[in-house]
Amino acid sequence: MDIEIGMGKQARRAYGFDEVSIVPSRRTRDPDDVDISWTLDAWTFNLPLMASAMDAVVSPKNAVEIGRLGGLAVLNLEGLWSRYEDPEPVYERIAEASPAEATKVIQDVYTEPMKAELVRERIREIKEGGVVAAASLTPQRVQDFAKDVLAAELDILVIQGTVVSAEHVSKTREPLNLKEFIKTFDIPVIVGGCAAYETAYHLMKTGAIGVLVGIGPGAACTSRQVLGIGVPQATAIADAAAARVRHLEETGRYCHVIADGGMRTGGDISKAIACGADAVMIASPIAGAFEAPGRGYHWGMATFHPELPRGVRVHAAQNATLKEILIGPADVNDGTLNLFGALQFSMATAGYGTVKEFQKSELVVAPAVKSEGKLLQQSQGVGSV
Amino acid sequence: MDIEIGMGKQARRAYGFDEVSIVPSRRTRDPDDVDISWTLDAWTFNLPLMASAMDAVVSPKNAVEIGRLGGLAVLNLEGLWSRYEDPEPVYERIAEASPAEATKVIQDVYTEPMKAELVRERIREIKEGGVVAAASLTPQRVQDFAKDVLAAELDILVIQGTVVSAEHVSKTREPLNLKEFIKTFDIPVIVGGCAAYETAYHLMKTGAIGVLVGIGPGAACTSRQVLGIGVPQATAIADAAAARVRHLEETGRYCHVIADGGMRTGGDISKAIACGADAVMIASPIAGAFEAPGRGYHWGMATFHPELPRGVRVHAAQNATLKEILIGPADVNDGTLNLFGALQFSMATAGYGTVKEFQKSELVVAPAVKSEGKLLQQSQGVGSV
Amino acid sequence: MDIEIGMGKQARRAYGFDEVSIVPSRRTRDPDDVDISWTLDAWTFNLPLMASAMDAVVSPKNAVEIGRLGGLAVLNLEGLWSRYEDPEPVYERIAEASPAEATKVIQDVYTEPMKAELVRERIREIKEGGVVAAASLTPQRVQDFAKDVLAAELDILVIQGTVVSAEHVSKTREPLNLKEFIKTFDIPVIVGGCAAYETAYHLMKTGAIGVLVGIGPGAACTSRQVLGIGVPQATAIADAAAARVRHLEETGRYCHVIADGGMRTGGDISKAIACGADAVMIASPIAGAFEAPGRGYHWGMATFHPELPRGVRVHAAQNATLKEILIGPADVNDGTLNLFGALQFSMATAGYGTVKEFQKSELVVAPAVKSEGKLLQQSQGVGSV
Amino acid sequence: MDIEIGMGKQARRAYGFDEVSIVPSRRTRDPDDVDISWTLDAWTFNLPLMASAMDAVVSPKNAVEIGRLGGLAVLNLEGLWSRYEDPEPVYERIAEASPAEATKVIQDVYTEPMKAELVRERIREIKEGGVVAAASLTPQRVQDFAKDVLAAELDILVIQGTVVSAEHVSKTREPLNLKEFIKTFDIPVIVGGCAAYETAYHLMKTGAIGVLVGIGPGAACTSRQVLGIGVPQATAIADAAAARVRHLEETGRYCHVIADGGMRTGGDISKAIACGADAVMIASPIAGAFEAPGRGYHWGMATFHPELPRGVRVHAAQNATLKEILIGPADVNDGTLNLFGALQFSMATAGYGTVKEFQKSELVVAPAVKSEGKLLQQSQGVGSV
Repeated sequence: MDIEIGMGKQARRAYGFDEVSIVPSRRTRDPDDVDISWTLDAWTFNLPLMASAMDAVVSPKNAVEIGRLGGLAVLNLEGLWSRYEDPEPVYERIAEASPAEATKVIQDVYTEPMKAELVRERIREIKEGGVVAAASLTPQRVQDFAKDVLAAELDILVIQGTVVSAEHVSKTREPLNLKEFIKTFDIPVIVGGCAAYETAYHLMKTGAIGVLVGIGPGAACTSRQVLGIGVPQATAIADAAAARVRHLEETGRYCHVIADGGMRTGGDISKAIACGADAVMIASPIAGAFEAPGRGYHWGMATFHPELPRGVRVHAAQNATLKEILIGPADVNDGTLNLFGALQFSMATAGYGTVKEFQKSELVVAPAVKSEGKLLQQSQGVGSV
Repeated sequence: MDIEIGMGKQARRAYGFDEVSIVPSRRTRDPDDVDISWTLDAWTFNLPLMASAMDAVVSPKNAVEIGRLGGLAVLNLEGLWSRYEDPEPVYERIAEASPAEATKVIQDVYTEPMKAELVRERIREIKEGGVVAAASLTPQRVQDFAKDVLAAELDILVIQGTVVSAEHVSKTREPLNLKEFIKTFDIPVIVGGCAAYETAYHLMKTGAIGVLVGIGPGAACTSRQVLGIGVPQATAIADAAAARVRHLEETGRYCHVIADGGMRTGGDISKAIACGADAVMIASPIAGAFEAPGRGYHWGMATFHPELPRGVRVHAAQNATLKEILIGPADVNDGTLNLFGALQFSMATAGYGTVKEFQKSELVVAPAVKSEGKLLQQSQGVGSV
Repeated sequence: MDIEIGMGKQARRAYGFDEVSIVPSRRTRDPDDVDISWTLDAWTFNLPLMASAMDAVVSPKNAVEIGRLGGLAVLNLEGLWSRYEDPEPVYERIAEASPAEATKVIQDVYTEPMKAELVRERIREIKEGGVVAAASLTPQRVQDFAKDVLAAELDILVIQGTVVSAEHVSKTREPLNLKEFIKTFDIPVIVGGCAAYETAYHLMKTGAIGVLVGIGPGAACTSRQVLGIGVPQATAIADAAAARVRHLEETGRYCHVIADGGMRTGGDISKAIACGADAVMIASPIAGAFEAPGRGYHWGMATFHPELPRGVRVHAAQNATLKEILIGPADVNDGTLNLFGALQFSMATAGYGTVKEFQKSELVVAPAVKSEGKLLQQSQGVGSV
Repeated sequence: MDIEIGMGKQARRAYGFDEVSIVPSRRTRDPDDVDISWTLDAWTFNLPLMASAMDAVVSPKNAVEIGRLGGLAVLNLEGLWSRYEDPEPVYERIAEASPAEATKVIQDVYTEPMKAELVRERIREIKEGGVVAAASLTPQRVQDFAKDVLAAELDILVIQGTVVSAEHVSKTREPLNLKEFIKTFDIPVIVGGCAAYETAYHLMKTGAIGVLVGIGPGAACTSRQVLGIGVPQATAIADAAAARVRHLEETGRYCHVIADGGMRTGGDISKAIACGADAVMIASPIAGAFEAPGRGYHWGMATFHPELPRGVRVHAAQNATLKEILIGPADVNDGTLNLFGALQFSMATAGYGTVKEFQKSELVVAPAVKSEGKLLQQSQGVGSV
């Protein structure tokens, strides 16, 4: 809190991924020796990856494929799959809407009510694929569908909203008491989003096995513009990692920090881990897979808010397989393919053997600079210009 | 004053809206529980909103509509409505001028003298609409039209200029003594602009019920380029808020801080309040309403200066109703519609129930970065990319 | 020297005009009460203005006009006017060169030798106009033409180069000893450029009546790109102003600090003064006058270096009279017309009555931000958006 | 380490060339008096220049020409020249590939195995030109070809990779022990890249005569985007220069710091030296010579990685001779020609006579700013706008 915005108003400087860079240690390693696997509760995943609970990113079908590739997909239980028996024509309608009418169309299709039967059905579809099944609800809807989620034998419940706090205040209705809910709920819960030390710490104290860190997302969300709220991700993650330490010391329980949003490349994912994340939750890169349900488009779950839509339907050109995107091989060089091969290579190059070690990686602050039409950081080196 | 520009020249770092962001507290709230109403002197407004005293923003007619929607419109008494019996053809002429000749045309139409009778008439037109009537004069003209303003029973007088100080010095004429004028004037006065602690404090001591904070405005003003003068708004507001505290402690009177200029979205308005403002004065967003008088254009009141025009006629595409702009519902997602629904939602998300509480909101400094053609802040999070 | 670039390498942060902004004081003034006149040695000029010694900016003819408008034009004695009896066809050739060949053409036309007779003749042409005559030579040529300059009764000699130091070292020839030259030379001398405290101080000790501050100029110079050398102007000026104080205390003589380069608008000029300059030397704005000799183009005096040209022929659209550019009236609003009316208005708005007072003006650091295609500083305010 | 990214995560601010600028000292010099020669081990080069070991930059043929012009070219022994008896058709294929297929084509042509006989042959071709012969291998390949390199009587071996550390860890194979290899190898070795104090220091302790400094290169490399790794060059060089001091004090041996990457202009090269480099390694400028083998294209040596290509085929318009690029004369003024004439001129202007002196040059931090389509630093001065 060392910056004075004006007399009597202090603030802290916060940093985004574009402002930081990883510094190699004095060691290097073979990529093959680097372990990027992620153990969450009873499960071990090959990749420290969650796929975002967004309709253009995760369907019951590609959730299974993501699971087989080593990640954990989260189906949004308040999305199209719980509202429509057959959502394919709805996806079609969204994809065919003109840019001018896209938001209105999205607002419209999400007025269709959720159906408990479909909630159960979708979870079962994932389970049948033989992978860990995760799905999300907002705090407002958790109590309405909790029994369906249990009945369908979901593995991990994600309770997610733009901002989720451990202490929601309402004058008109009894809000979800996260702590009590999680304590008595039969399956592990991940909650979020949050973006600062105190908030993350209090969410951890609810008993969640993980917290999602990130407010004011990237490509498909305009919360920052609409609400003025947000914390750059490098700072938000480092804060949450510090809260994890305190929570661990006080309770003996390790609560996972999952960086949610703002990552497009292997470099971004590497930085998220280097800032302290245990895993990352990504959307846009997966929306760009042939297997993604969005038909080349991508939108957020606040895009259809009836009075204050936040988010925009964005293009997500589908030009690679899920496998190429997640574990390669890549035949382009902009960092958008082989995301986790890149993480592995980054850790090897920087000299770290495990995610826990890489979380302690040295960083420099190196602000991004626009140069000849491309956003580049001011670091130039190996390989020469 | 901790930055050394060069040997012996100190300066303070000042911050704009694009450089700061709001950090949610550990609580969240229901939007419906959030109170954004604004009590100014004897009046309570549903919205903490003033509409700028500019000819493309406020006409007698839409002043009434803005009042009915919960805001306070300010008619510029030195504008077209006090110069022309029927200003509609003049608006037409401005709208039809080519870009090259726009400034000259604007310079020309404002050479028509003001008429005291029209000053009275316009005020009465607003009063007849049953809303609080506010109108503005520059310090140079206040004494010429004071009696007309009183005769027409204006509710609130705004004394406004690019920079207004409590101590104007002139060798050639007796300047307006703001303190004496306000003390003896029969109706409440708001004064501005100002942009730093000392200046705001001295303006508050004149007895004004509010000060306008902001120098070197946004879209329709080029004062900063022409004069080199200006203070970024986040800093200017925080400074004025600190002056408000001192003034309150010394006099027991609460002088409202009204952020004037530089706000286009709900996010900007939220930040203005979070920096310490009691209310905001906006122009461009309102100039974009179907009900705005500017016919799709917008210009400032310094645009017609005969020797040193400062400001430019800018496009203000009219594509929403006043109601959609101010209180929604929105069907676009760039933050330009439902501005005060967004404020309410922002306060709820950040966990604050009243404007006074939100003024103490935590901020981070998070510089804006140009990314892929859009100005985004480096914060990415909730909802995932 | 508080920034660590890397281990063992310290640096100081330096600031440019785009990074600072003037803060109004608690007073305001009438523009008519503001005195911007400039007294240099025996002369008083209505405007604190020097016109740059560049071929596209100053000809003998417009030097007279600039003088009549209140400024001081400097003719470059190593330019076309001293090389060609009739330079008009040469200007024509430069103006007609294609962009690709412009540098080569400029290199070529400046291979024509200087003629002592023309040096004398051009000075006389200015003198005959009844204005103060100033002209420039590089340190390398001063001794060759000193007697011609005296014979023609020049009023002020400007000794100018990209960087001029008080201590030039050469193994192969006897360099100009500035201190001895100035002491014994019969007319006052202004020297530059320089850009930091020590260098400015040592140049002041040569006995010059003024120093030019600025290295790595603006539109028509690429020294910074080619050589990596340069100091942002706000810092360079503040440094030189501090050297002026020391020099005054030690010698009792006031050496003028003339900001040279990087100013395009009234705002830039105001900032130069507010950083501590006594006057400004400008080129691009004057090259854009109908009366400028450059025929719509502008280039620097290092543009024709035979082996390492530094500078570029740039467009300087001629669309206003010298009078409109310097003292108005303006009918555009981007700050490029009525430059000194703007200075006067800026001082009045900020509350300062004289240049000496304005030099002590409060500044804020407010970094420039690209917004919607225009370079704007993050300060938004008076007049509202 | 004075910046807090988030709670518990510290970082250091690092600087790139675009953020710093050279401040002239109080002296100036004649360019002809400035000595820019470089003595490395037994050799003295007229220019402190290495040409990068990249296939679009150095062929056996132009290595000779670069040597004759005073520099030291490094042939990449893992490139096309060691894979193909006649690589010309391969260059052709790369040049003719469409942008979309370029990376795939490059991946493909580099699957051709290296041939020991060609390794020897190419070195001999350079030796026959009568210049110092330097060539590079990655750490992984050094032991395979060490005897060929010696047999062909290479003068200097460069061991190079994206990041090379003194301590490589591998579970599956015996990594190269740099220290032991260099101690027993018969010819001098240069190693890199590295980018921070500790890493550079440990590389110096291997006995190398020089270290290459730079990670996350410029135009032809996307390591930063793909891996998130990199340190801006000004900081990396200053750090390595500090390591050089420590190493010299401890061992009495001077290990050269060679800035590798991120330099396009004479200004960049000047800054690299001013930050502490002994010499520079450049690629893009040389790829733009008529004599370059790349046929107007340029790509890095990580571009063809089969699973994670990092780098991109970029245009390198060939429009000048090697001589014009390196030592002039220039007839363009953007800093891309006469690179070392510019270095000489920069040193003269700043007042330094030797590279060792220039390494101690004063710098300012002056962040780059995009202005009217060009990346300019905020420093404006000499010569006027």
